[in-house]
Amino acid sequence: MNINELLKKKSWLGWVLFLITVVAVFFLGLLASSIIERRSEAVFAYAPQITFPPNEPDNSKWGEIFPREYNSYLKTSDTSFRSRYNGSASIDMLETNPEMVILWAGYSFSKDYRQGRGHYYSVTDIRQTLRTGTPVNDVPSPAPNTCWTCKSSNVPGIIEEEGAAGFYRGTWEKRGKQIINPIGCADCHDSKTMNLRISRQALLEAYKAAGKDIGKVSFQEMRSLVCAQCHVEYYFNKNIVEGVDYLVFPWKNGLTAEDIERYYDELRFTDWTHALSRAPMLKAQHPDYEVYMTGTHASRGVSCADCHMPFISEGGQKFTDHHIQSPLNNVANSCQVCHREETERLVNDVYLRQDKIMESRKILEGLLVKCHFEAKAAWDKGAKEDQMKEILNDIRRAQWRWDFATAGHGNSFHSPLETLRLITSGISIASEARLKLSKVLVSLGYTGEVKVPDISEKAKAQRLIGLDIEKLTEEKSEFLKKVVPVWNKSEAN
Amino acid sequence: MNINELLKKKSWLGWVLFLITVVAVFFLGLLASSIIERRSEAVFAYAPQITFPPNEPDNSKWGEIFPREYNSYLKTSDTSFRSRYNGSASIDMLETNPEMVILWAGYSFSKDYRQGRGHYYSVTDIRQTLRTGTPVNDVPSPAPNTCWTCKSSNVPGIIEEEGAAGFYRGTWEKRGKQIINPIGCADCHDSKTMNLRISRQALLEAYKAAGKDIGKVSFQEMRSLVCAQCHVEYYFNKNIVEGVDYLVFPWKNGLTAEDIERYYDELRFTDWTHALSRAPMLKAQHPDYEVYMTGTHASRGVSCADCHMPFISEGGQKFTDHHIQSPLNNVANSCQVCHREETERLVNDVYLRQDKIMESRKILEGLLVKCHFEAKAAWDKGAKEDQMKEILNDIRRAQWRWDFATAGHGNSFHSPLETLRLITSGISIASEARLKLSKVLVSLGYTGEVKVPDISEKAKAQRLIGLDIEKLTEEKSEFLKKVVPVWNKSEAN
Repeated sequence: MNINELLKKKSWLGWVLFLITVVAVFFLGLLASSIIERRSEAVFAYAPQITFPPNEPDNSKWGEIFPREYNSYLKTSDTSFRSRYNGSASIDMLETNPEMVILWAGYSFSKDYRQGRGHYYSVTDIRQTLRTGTPVNDVPSPAPNTCWTCKSSNVPGIIEEEGAAGFYRGTWEKRGKQIINPIGCADCHDSKTMNLRISRQALLEAYKAAGKDIGKVSFQEMRSLVCAQCHVEYYFNKNIVEGVDYLVFPWKNGLTAEDIERYYDELRFTDWTHALSRAPMLKAQHPDYEVYMTGTHASRGVSCADCHMPFISEGGQKFTDHHIQSPLNNVANSCQVCHREETERLVNDVYLRQDKIMESRKILEGLLVKCHFEAKAAWDKGAKEDQMKEILNDIRRAQWRWDFATAGHGNSFHSPLETLRLITSGISIASEARLKLSKVLVSLGYTGEVKVPDISEKAKAQRLIGLDIEKLTEEKSEFLKKVVPVWNKSEAN
Repeated sequence: MNINELLKKKSWLGWVLFLITVVAVFFLGLLASSIIERRSEAVFAYAPQITFPPNEPDNSKWGEIFPREYNSYLKTSDTSFRSRYNGSASIDMLETNPEMVILWAGYSFSKDYRQGRGHYYSVTDIRQTLRTGTPVNDVPSPAPNTCWTCKSSNVPGIIEEEGAAGFYRGTWEKRGKQIINPIGCADCHDSKTMNLRISRQALLEAYKAAGKDIGKVSFQEMRSLVCAQCHVEYYFNKNIVEGVDYLVFPWKNGLTAEDIERYYDELRFTDWTHALSRAPMLKAQHPDYEVYMTGTHASRGVSCADCHMPFISEGGQKFTDHHIQSPLNNVANSCQVCHREETERLVNDVYLRQDKIMESRKILEGLLVKCHFEAKAAWDKGAKEDQMKEILNDIRRAQWRWDFATAGHGNSFHSPLETLRLITSGISIASEARLKLSKVLVSLGYTGEVKVPDISEKAKAQRLIGLDIEKLTEEKSEFLKKVVPVWNKSEAN
């Protein structure tokens, strides 16, 4: 068989292969077409066809166009997830840590402090807490409208119309009928482009005050900054616009606890005077963003949304999960994107950090309670202002560190070492204060031990500092029954 | 042109392609052959052809067969690398932290404490330090032979001949002539198989005491355990073999500072009585392994060798870099194998951890210094044993935590949170002690402040606690001039 015969024979095989290839390519084409079609379905679903006004506060209207995002957002109503430290649907922090009642004596947090629930409940919960008081029967609320700022998607629209100061002015009864929708779409999104946006003035103003340009931040930074509109340390400044509790982020000197403390000291700002020790106290709010910024995830460019709103995929469409939640309840989509390890080990790593920090936090809580009672004893025995001044400042500084470390959501994970550093610094300052107090007491002729009364239960601690919780609860209940339904109804109309 | 003609024409092209392929395959064959040859070169170089006895103490003999490992080992003589905290070739820790002179008053560490240099210097440095005293002119050394245990590759051979207790028995002048070679090959390797081996009894005995089987550890664990033969907390037990300072790792209750403290408490063990406070002190050695075990690298199965002796490649041969050193001086081969980030950022991350911990460490050091002086003041003013007992125990516990956190090499990187947790606990205990001391002082009629004398320099602090460093230095110098050359010479013969 010469080479030509061989080639002739092989040509049949060639034809068969050719036909098989033709068929295979045809089906590949079908597959590609199907993929492209699905992609265009996805692209079609993303195309914003906005029928609602800018700042639309009703999340369900946005949900008509973005059903996946909206449906996942609705899951923030699910309170079933329990981390190891979450015993109930909304843990009563004062019940779990009655020391806190003492630490906040004279301040509204001693009345009621519960673990935050999902964004879905933001309006419900702020109305329900005893902290916000009860505007009933022409009695004005103790809570300025500034308190609503972070609670409702109704806020951006009002601010656009009346300006930030206009929105803040007055107390709850003025705006109760306007603040109906919980935190939602308009808080973070531009209604035309769906781009992330900063809708709260305080963050824009804080950036300006620190000499930074919010216009220059990256998309990835925005995925944290929209959260930082609310999850930050803040205070109400009464000297910016007369008669207005103006919301300010105290970031001018920097974001650490010490930077912010210096800011408050320079302003001689005090949240309240402690009912027992008479110390000029600061209350840390929830400096989540500030503490997160000192941690390893922030330094690697991981944003809040990367872990709390990771991308998911449904029906060929990739989108951001708007079920904002603890990543511990969603390890596969959050942690495991980078950390290829078993869920249990990753979760245990978080608990390990929490445990180590909790040990020291409890020490500091105990010391602070003693400080307040010992200072009270010193006053009771006739201490003079000048004897107490430095001590009271120590108590302010030590409790500020405790609160900054403790008040945040997840600090001991976001930045464990910084959190423990703060607590350690607090322990050292509180101990110093106790030593000074002991000397003041000696100078007043008292060498014994100052006993800490029984504060083993929330109710005992609250009675001790003179709170009539039953009365407050009754008033709140009346407000919820009489006032809130009227507010809600006005929206329905 | 029908299909047959086309095929005929194409057959020429086929032949050309065929020939090209033949040539290409030929050269590929050459390449493969070259690779295989290089591999067999490498395999040949690895093949151990041992000509020296087991436990050969002379590292250069091993180096004849393993030149790459040996040459890299020799680089442990290089002291040029400076991390941010290393200012000089062998930083004088007492010069940098004169507080340490006070913390160790009454104990040999107050005389001399320098940063460890490379393994190459282990024998030189242990001879030179003022801590080990001077066996000159028939004056016996204060240092038992147990002190050599971790310093020389001569040790495994002696232990094999005389047993561990036999080796430990007696003081330096007995074995000075035998302890010549620095830490080296025989300490970690079996001379026949080159497998890793545990040559020190203390680790084997500690495993047994803790009910664990050293025979069941993995190869990867061995890559840490050979280091753990020495880089651990240990003490000398005088009650195991009469007249012998028996080396023991106090691991029976576990590896944490608290576990080991409980072990010592149960034994009523005390390293020394503090010269100022009279507290029954513990000295932490260098609990590197124990602290490392609580960290994230250990929990991910990263061994000591992975970072301190990473694999490198030379002439087609992959081998373990025996230049044991700070990974900060070798980021590319250590950190960056897993962490794909810039060197500068990785190094800064280490510094960041060190900074946060250093802040709290300095606080604790200050508190401990005050404790010792205040306790001394209490004794001076006539305090009774029973008034002081609890306080002295507090001082013991607080300083133990400081020492455990501080004495190790790299604790603040190996396990930052555990290290800071310990320091925090120490701060809390030391503060409590100061409060109690203040009350004791008041009961003795003293309400003033106990002044801490000027200890701003090492020399001042040492004079204060009654050390005659000049005399000690002279004696040491005589020992180094007269005795050491004789010891060294005996080896040469």
